[in-house]
Amino acid sequence: VATPGAPFAERLATSMRARRSRVCLGMDPRPAAHPLTHPREGAGATSVAERVVAFYRAMLEGAHELVACVKPQSAFFEALGPAGAEALARVMEIARAHELPVILDAKRGDVGSTAEAYASAYLGGGPLGADALTVSPYLGFDTLEPFVQAAERTGNGIFVLVATSNPGAAALQDLSTSDGRRVYEHVADVVAMHAARLAPAGSYGPIGAVVGATRGGRLGELRRRLPRSLLLVPGYGAQGGGADDVAVVFDDARLGAVVSSSRALVPSAGATDMTAVAREAATRAGAMRDLIEEALDRRDSRA
Amino acid sequence: VATPGAPFAERLATSMRARRSRVCLGMDPRPAAHPLTHPREGAGATSVAERVVAFYRAMLEGAHELVACVKPQSAFFEALGPAGAEALARVMEIARAHELPVILDAKRGDVGSTAEAYASAYLGGGPLGADALTVSPYLGFDTLEPFVQAAERTGNGIFVLVATSNPGAAALQDLSTSDGRRVYEHVADVVAMHAARLAPAGSYGPIGAVVGATRGGRLGELRRRLPRSLLLVPGYGAQGGGADDVAVVFDDARLGAVVSSSRALVPSAGATDMTAVAREAATRAGAMRDLIEEALDRRDSRA
Repeated sequence: VATPGAPFAERLATSMRARRSRVCLGMDPRPAAHPLTHPREGAGATSVAERVVAFYRAMLEGAHELVACVKPQSAFFEALGPAGAEALARVMEIARAHELPVILDAKRGDVGSTAEAYASAYLGGGPLGADALTVSPYLGFDTLEPFVQAAERTGNGIFVLVATSNPGAAALQDLSTSDGRRVYEHVADVVAMHAARLAPAGSYGPIGAVVGATRGGRLGELRRRLPRSLLLVPGYGAQGGGADDVAVVFDDARLGAVVSSSRALVPSAGATDMTAVAREAATRAGAMRDLIEEALDRRDSRA
Repeated sequence: VATPGAPFAERLATSMRARRSRVCLGMDPRPAAHPLTHPREGAGATSVAERVVAFYRAMLEGAHELVACVKPQSAFFEALGPAGAEALARVMEIARAHELPVILDAKRGDVGSTAEAYASAYLGGGPLGADALTVSPYLGFDTLEPFVQAAERTGNGIFVLVATSNPGAAALQDLSTSDGRRVYEHVADVVAMHAARLAPAGSYGPIGAVVGATRGGRLGELRRRLPRSLLLVPGYGAQGGGADDVAVVFDDARLGAVVSSSRALVPSAGATDMTAVAREAATRAGAMRDLIEEALDRRDSRA
């Protein structure tokens, strides 16, 4: 469905329109929590990494028409050792075969040429190349620049961590500084500046932001503060954010953001074969999609 | 030389004493910049990842008695794709065969169970398990806790980013907040609290901190603010910090910190075989070691 070679924001919008979905399928292969990914008695010689690939192949078989994009969480693949990197490459390939944009959630951030190496690994079109990467700005705003430049050069996107969904996020991100802005507002303003420079007129560009669904009243404020940024909204469901909370991040065309969840979409422990995983993934992705659409209907009927 | 099973701080101190060195060998396999790691005409079928392993084998062959520990930079291995993860595992194995503690510089940070997955990947004793890991606290102090708990449980260490060496670090880390502390001082105080709880009486514990050599006057202040933390000091040499600048981070026994450099230790482009790489690595590591020892001699003669 996406135009090959189109900029990331356009690829994502094309997918959202075609699927009528604002859901980003989080891929967090916790071996202990996911049916079919952890070693069982009699499971044979397949490695955990191979089971993870098979599991997400089944998930996408079931859910690929109901979600707008996927978000593999790098940490869980890294925890599988070198075989995990291979599994990550294969899962991204499967998503792309379904024409689903891949947002790799790796929260990378480092200085100068090290940031360039991360950008080259994950935005550069190699085996681990994604459509977009989450990036941490908290070492200093200069550390964002290699990622911004890579986004500009490749047509891929970045999502900069601005306000995260963890319970302790506020302890640092919400500190008030001497110019009256909170720490996360400093970050948001730098992101908005890069986003404004790179976005096509009247649209979103490649410089997005991560804003946690649990940030409540802050979500609307950040939507206004970041008018040219796609927003990636984690923390839906298990972490406490609900459909009405997140409705505020979408524009009138219901674009401009995706809401991600892993736990709300994972099949129950009772799904013991690939057919059941695919079926449950479809049910759960459809339910999350519908909850968000209904919240948007309520929002729009109030407007 | 290190006692197997000893806590990380003790393993590092043992190595520092045995080698009389405070140097941490940074391993940044930039294929374009390192002799013997980038593809050349007629280089045959070996992959870049294989050449990286052979290069660091030669570096350590030459320098292993002159450096206290090694610090692979994960980004450059990740940029090699899945084969890079395998190369990283092999380089760490080579370092361990020389009884050199490995500080993996990956600057990981994420929420809750995702941070646990990173801790399990890099502190848990698997193929990518290191002796210590660099960790970013900037998503919130709660995101440090899985790493602190892993350090407590495994006897391995963490180095929390407090004040980094990039030119733009101050724009965020040095913001003044409403209680009078700068952002990095909030981070330092949380690190000091965890460090105090886990350090053995009168010694350093597993909770260390990264403080850039370029932070000048801040280095002494941070040494006092973090009395129970080992300090990892990057930014020496190429990034601008010199031997006299960093002398202040060591205690009277010349322990409590390591100074890392990659560029100052990398052989020149003229080193076109493994023997030359080993010889130049030894010369350069010895020179950096001696410069720091001489700076400490000057410091102590003034005292």
